[in-house]
Amino acid sequence: MIIIVHGGAGEDSKFIRKHKDEYEKELKAAVEAGYSKLLNGGTCTDAVEAAITYMEDCYLFNCGKGSALTASNDVEMDTSIMEGSKLKHGAAAIVKNVKNPIKLARKIMEEGDDVFLGSSGALEFAIEKGLELAPSAYFITEHQIEALEKAQKKDNNPKTPTKGKHGTVGAVAVDRFGNIAAGTSTGGTENSMESRIGDSPIIGVGCYANNKTCAVSTSGDGAYLIKNIIAYDVAACIEYKGYNLEQAVNFVINEKHKNSEGDIGLISINCQGEIGIAFNSERFHRAWKINDAEIEARIYK
Amino acid sequence: MIIIVHGGAGEDSKFIRKHKDEYEKELKAAVEAGYSKLLNGGTCTDAVEAAITYMEDCYLFNCGKGSALTASNDVEMDTSIMEGSKLKHGAAAIVKNVKNPIKLARKIMEEGDDVFLGSSGALEFAIEKGLELAPSAYFITEHQIEALEKAQKKDNNPKTPTKGKHGTVGAVAVDRFGNIAAGTSTGGTENSMESRIGDSPIIGVGCYANNKTCAVSTSGDGAYLIKNIIAYDVAACIEYKGYNLEQAVNFVINEKHKNSEGDIGLISINCQGEIGIAFNSERFHRAWKINDAEIEARIYK
Repeated sequence: MIIIVHGGAGEDSKFIRKHKDEYEKELKAAVEAGYSKLLNGGTCTDAVEAAITYMEDCYLFNCGKGSALTASNDVEMDTSIMEGSKLKHGAAAIVKNVKNPIKLARKIMEEGDDVFLGSSGALEFAIEKGLELAPSAYFITEHQIEALEKAQKKDNNPKTPTKGKHGTVGAVAVDRFGNIAAGTSTGGTENSMESRIGDSPIIGVGCYANNKTCAVSTSGDGAYLIKNIIAYDVAACIEYKGYNLEQAVNFVINEKHKNSEGDIGLISINCQGEIGIAFNSERFHRAWKINDAEIEARIYK
Repeated sequence: MIIIVHGGAGEDSKFIRKHKDEYEKELKAAVEAGYSKLLNGGTCTDAVEAAITYMEDCYLFNCGKGSALTASNDVEMDTSIMEGSKLKHGAAAIVKNVKNPIKLARKIMEEGDDVFLGSSGALEFAIEKGLELAPSAYFITEHQIEALEKAQKKDNNPKTPTKGKHGTVGAVAVDRFGNIAAGTSTGGTENSMESRIGDSPIIGVGCYANNKTCAVSTSGDGAYLIKNIIAYDVAACIEYKGYNLEQAVNFVINEKHKNSEGDIGLISINCQGEIGIAFNSERFHRAWKINDAEIEARIYK
């Protein structure tokens, strides 16, 4: 039983350096939240949901509480989840007022007939299914207000998404049944225009899982991840090039996108319990627990 | 110079049989609209936009005017476009009141910094860029009102998307410069819940283009296309298995998804002017023009 979580790939910052110990502590706690599900007989999906829920509830990560603010001071969240056993998936974009978007993605996967919901439809579905809601003020942190003010002063353009500040979170896990799942959740890109949908809710880009190949969750430069179908690309290298997981991850990040103009970070796992973590950015918040070994967390190389 | 268009893969229907000649005529006219751009020095993107615009304006196709209605009698459109030369892309989902969603996708690609916009943000961007708008009534046809009434009577469930009735349109083209592009536009799935985002606006699923491999536009069962990253999968088979376009298309549709529970139809092209068209559904509206040859159109096998 293994779980890996990430808290985003991107540029380093004063805020991250200042809170380094706290980030590591919270990444480990997210792993713990997920792993305890696995220990208690839960599925990989339970573990992924629990770990991401923990990070959504923590103000340090750009998802749920602590989400980046759009150009108009709003919070719009994106999320996706996928199970490797039957390729079931659920996703939601431009989500507002749902306390834990990852729970919404799972509900959509399980009761929404594999769909992708956006905006008011996503909120309506969450209400219908009895998911916990929260007022807009719940999601907005002092740190993100300051960050947006700074970005808007610097840019003189209220709608230029801030480059490099990707705090998307994600998780992948393998359970005692040998199944794998992946999930991703984000508050989106700071200072972006209204209703921008990022890479995170896109199956094959932000998240992908297939028992035959691997489960992947990604973070980084949205447009770059989208044009390169980055999560599925790792699986395609396994399926079509005959690579093992490590080779596939290494090829995608360190060869194919060696000279990438965009930040990429990804975590991955397969049913045999092999794992792959790689990134080309200054930092990639990540932590993992492999069977009985101690939980480990890293932010830099 | 080549252009291929499609008008959706799915089940046959009385409406389609009744309008067979008209469909073939309009598919050919869409090809003509695209090809004339190529002839006059336009790019593959100009051709794809013109062909899809023609179909969006025609009441017979499920896109633009003639879009399928959601469970609440609304029109919500999805669209995407991608250029193979630099992997630039644009997409929009839950689009309302924009007369030609494909033009919005292109504007987003060219002036929106490669993003994916949804809902009110997509509409706001369209207004900002001066795209032509139309009142909701413009998009709603008698045929789609009758179809929804019938579906809702049959199902006794106002939110069960109708299976098999996929009328998504798309186009792929290669221009005199040897570049390729793909575009896709849809009115979505009949009787679906509010703000459902389908496969069409998802890069790698509804549409994909890369000069190194191929350009693809797809149609069919949304959830099935999404979980199988169907457009990019054709490109991955070329890149990683060393297949040519015909082999890749044949492998994806006739081997990998031979026993698919979902409808799939796709058109594809590469920079060498090779083409690939395949589908597993009862019908797949399609037409093409290859250099100086006559335009051809087909609906059934």
